This record gives sequence, structure tokens and C-alpha cells, in this order.
Amino acid sequence: MKRIRLRVAYDGTDFCGWQIQPKKRTVEGELDLAINELLHTKIHVIGASRTDAGVHALGNVAVFDTDSPIPPERFAFALNQHLPKDIRIQSSDQVPDDWHPRHCDCRKTYEYRILNRPVNLPTESRYSWFCHQQLSIPRMQKAAAYLVGNHDFKSFCSAKTDVETTVRTIYRLEVEQNEEHIRIRVQGNGFLYNMVRIIAGTLVQVGAGKIHPEDMPDILSSCDRKQAGITAPAHGLRLVEIDYDE
Amino acid sequence: MKRIRLRVAYDGTDFCGWQIQPKKRTVEGELDLAINELLHTKIHVIGASRTDAGVHALGNVAVFDTDSPIPPERFAFALNQHLPKDIRIQSSDQVPDDWHPRHCDCRKTYEYRILNRPVNLPTESRYSWFCHQQLSIPRMQKAAAYLVGNHDFKSFCSAKTDVETTVRTIYRLEVEQNEEHIRIRVQGNGFLYNMVRIIAGTLVQVGAGKIHPEDMPDILSSCDRKQAGITAPAHGLRLVEIDYDE
Repeated sequence: MKRIRLRVAYDGTDFCGWQIQPKKRTVEGELDLAINELLHTKIHVIGASRTDAGVHALGNVAVFDTDSPIPPERFAFALNQHLPKDIRIQSSDQVPDDWHPRHCDCRKTYEYRILNRPVNLPTESRYSWFCHQQLSIPRMQKAAAYLVGNHDFKSFCSAKTDVETTVRTIYRLEVEQNEEHIRIRVQGNGFLYNMVRIIAGTLVQVGAGKIHPEDMPDILSSCDRKQAGITAPAHGLRLVEIDYDE
Repeated sequence: MKRIRLRVAYDGTDFCGWQIQPKKRTVEGELDLAINELLHTKIHVIGASRTDAGVHALGNVAVFDTDSPIPPERFAFALNQHLPKDIRIQSSDQVPDDWHPRHCDCRKTYEYRILNRPVNLPTESRYSWFCHQQLSIPRMQKAAAYLVGNHDFKSFCSAKTDVETTVRTIYRLEVEQNEEHIRIRVQGNGFLYNMVRIIAGTLVQVGAGKIHPEDMPDILSSCDRKQAGITAPAHGLRLVEIDYDE
């Protein structure tokens, strides 16, 4: 028996998120299906990040156990032959039998993309949130700086959550502009439900002048979801990578 | 009566190209429909570039004539209310009554995108040609340089064409690399049928070592389509803009 780790990229548009659900098209469901087709046994993968419906990924992580003689690094290619085109395994390797993608120390990097111009562009709208009002990048950067570090992010978490603690560490949170493209990059040791999308929505409202950058400490300390900004739409978000300390 | 010019962006994925065809979804057909819905009269637009099925555009150009009292620059917003999301009018203005988008001196800019990495990325595959073999950018740039200028591009034109002359001028042809993204940008006074896609396909074969950069002058002078490389797929191509000398 060996444990195989997959790095999984997908276009989230046509998925009801990661987590398997009856009669819904999910990334986890498609992965299980492909593995079962390849190995002719019923296997369930365990995923690192259960991304929401519409969220994309360049490098989500999943593991499964198998006795198959297929070399670990060949599973990427083999599974891609059985997967739909909107999922591509980027690589595969063997990990220790007790290695778990959610119980390991890791750094997750997400990117939120905003298209900031007067009219939407169809070639961008699948992967960017379109904002027509002009956004101030310096204001967004100033607000972002308050969120870096170890904080209770309860204000930046959707109500429907049952986590033990809402304290998380953000290592980096950068707002970059390249002409009409704005990218928010955030790296942390874990994120609460909708946390990155609420951060993105709040920063956009800061950029539009509706929230003051200096309000961020009060928003954090209130531990009240209603004090933070709106939840940015899912399609602008992508899970870039998960780095494990190993 | 006034002539209105539209700058039109679209995601070409779900269109059978620009040109109107019975029972097919085309950009021209959708524009006609939207104008007829808005103005309640049967009007046909005249387009600048009749892009192929699957080709995208940031700034194709179309004109139509109307007596409507709507201010010329308001047509962009008004028509977007009637158009599907994969077409967005970027701007509208009035042009002289005899201004024709195909009979004017202009510079057209196209971009061809290539994703050059071992495994495809679902979030890129809609707008880039995936090439897994490593491509040499210096070789591609060297080959590209031979194509700049005034040449007979018959070798870079698909057979099914009935143009008067196959001589065209390429003002610029650049191959740029940003990590795994390769972009071919070409600007010219007009392009033959499939010309940009054949240039892109040929340059990729040069980059992969299958064609020598030094063969380009012979390929040009042969005036034989079979001497050039393959036709790159439509989805990597986008019409960036059309500049009119005015």
C-alpha cells in the first residue's frame, strides 16, 4: 500500500466546488471517478482545500491510497487520460502513509483577480471580477497591511462555519496593479470559510472609497462579519499553491 | 442618417466566427439581433475583420447606419443591455457617412498565445495553444524577423481564398516570453485567410526545431502553402485592435 499525492489544477466554472455531493458535478467526484476507472477499485481522495463552487485552482492537493504497481509519478499522466479537460493533474508523487493534506503545516497561496475598467472584457470575465468604478491601489495596499500577521479573522468569515478557532496567520497580502488588472495575492497558514473573498470584497470597497483603510483594525477587533465588506464573487478567486513544510 | 462605429470585444469560443450564417451562432448575427431589438428596425452591421470560429477579439470594428436620436457614444451601453455576455461593445462613435471599416487604411494587431509547459492548465486552455515540447524563443524570434516587411504571403494563406493579391505588409512581428507564456504579436495592414495562425504554427515548429529559422526566405518565395508550417488552432488567437489612419 502506498499513499499518492496529486497536485490538481481546475477551471472551477462548471463545478459545484470541490466537495463531492450527490448528483452534482464536483472536482472530488470527478477525481474519484477517474481513479476508479483507472484502477477498477472504489477509492476516495482526500483533498487539502475544499474550494467553493466557481473557484479555480492551479495547485490544490489530494491524496489516495493504492496497491497499484503504477509508479507514483506516472499517476498524473495516467489519470489525465480519464479526467475531463477542466481538470489536469500537474504532478503526482508518493508521500508517507500517515501524511494528510489537511493535518500538515502548510502555506496556502490564493490570488484574487479584478478587472478594473469601464466595460467588461469577455476574454477576462471568466477569471476576474469586473469592477467599473476606479479603485485606488494605494488605499487598498494600506488596508491590506493591517491584515498581515496573526489575527482573529472572525469578521472575515461567513456565518456558516464550525471551526474551533477563527485565529489565522497571514504571511503576505499584496495588492498589485498591471494596467487594468488588479491582483490580490494572499499567503497564510489557512483560511476560514469565504475569508479570501471577504478580504477581496473589503479591499475593493476600500479602493472605491466606501471603507477607510484606517478602519481595518476596528473591523478585525469587532469579530463581527457585518463590519467587514462584501463577499467578492467566486470566479475571481484561484488557489495558486499549497506549500508543505517537509 | 448617421453612421455609427462600434468597437467590439468577444470570447470566440461559443461562436461560429464573425460572419452571419443561417442557424449558426455568430458575432455578426448577435449584433444584428441586438440592434434590431434596440431600434426595432432591420439593420445589418458591416464588420472589419471576419474572424474565424473560435478566434477572440478585444477590438473588432463594425458600423451601421441609423436615424435613431440615441447619442452615438451611448450605443455601446445601450447595445450591451441586449447582447449576450460573451460580446461587449467597448465604445461607439459617429464616423463619416462614407467611412467603411474594410476600405480604409488601417493597422491590425493580432496576438497569438501559447502555453509552453509539461501539462496543460485548465484556466489557460481556453485562450492559449498548449505546447508541451520546449520551444526556443531565440529561434522563433530569428524566424519572425524574416517575415517583417512587404512580402507575398501566399505560402501563409489557406487555399480557400479569392483575394486579388497575396502581398501584405507586416509592420511588426514580436515573440515574447513571460515564464511559460509565449505571445506572438503581429501588426500589419491586413492579413490573408488563416495567415496569423499559419505564421504562429510555423514559428512554433521553428521553436521546436522542426523548421530552421533560415528556411523562412525560401518558404516565402516558394508561394506554396505546403512549404510553411501547420495552422495553429483558432482559440490561441485574438484580434487586439484595428487602428485607422484618420
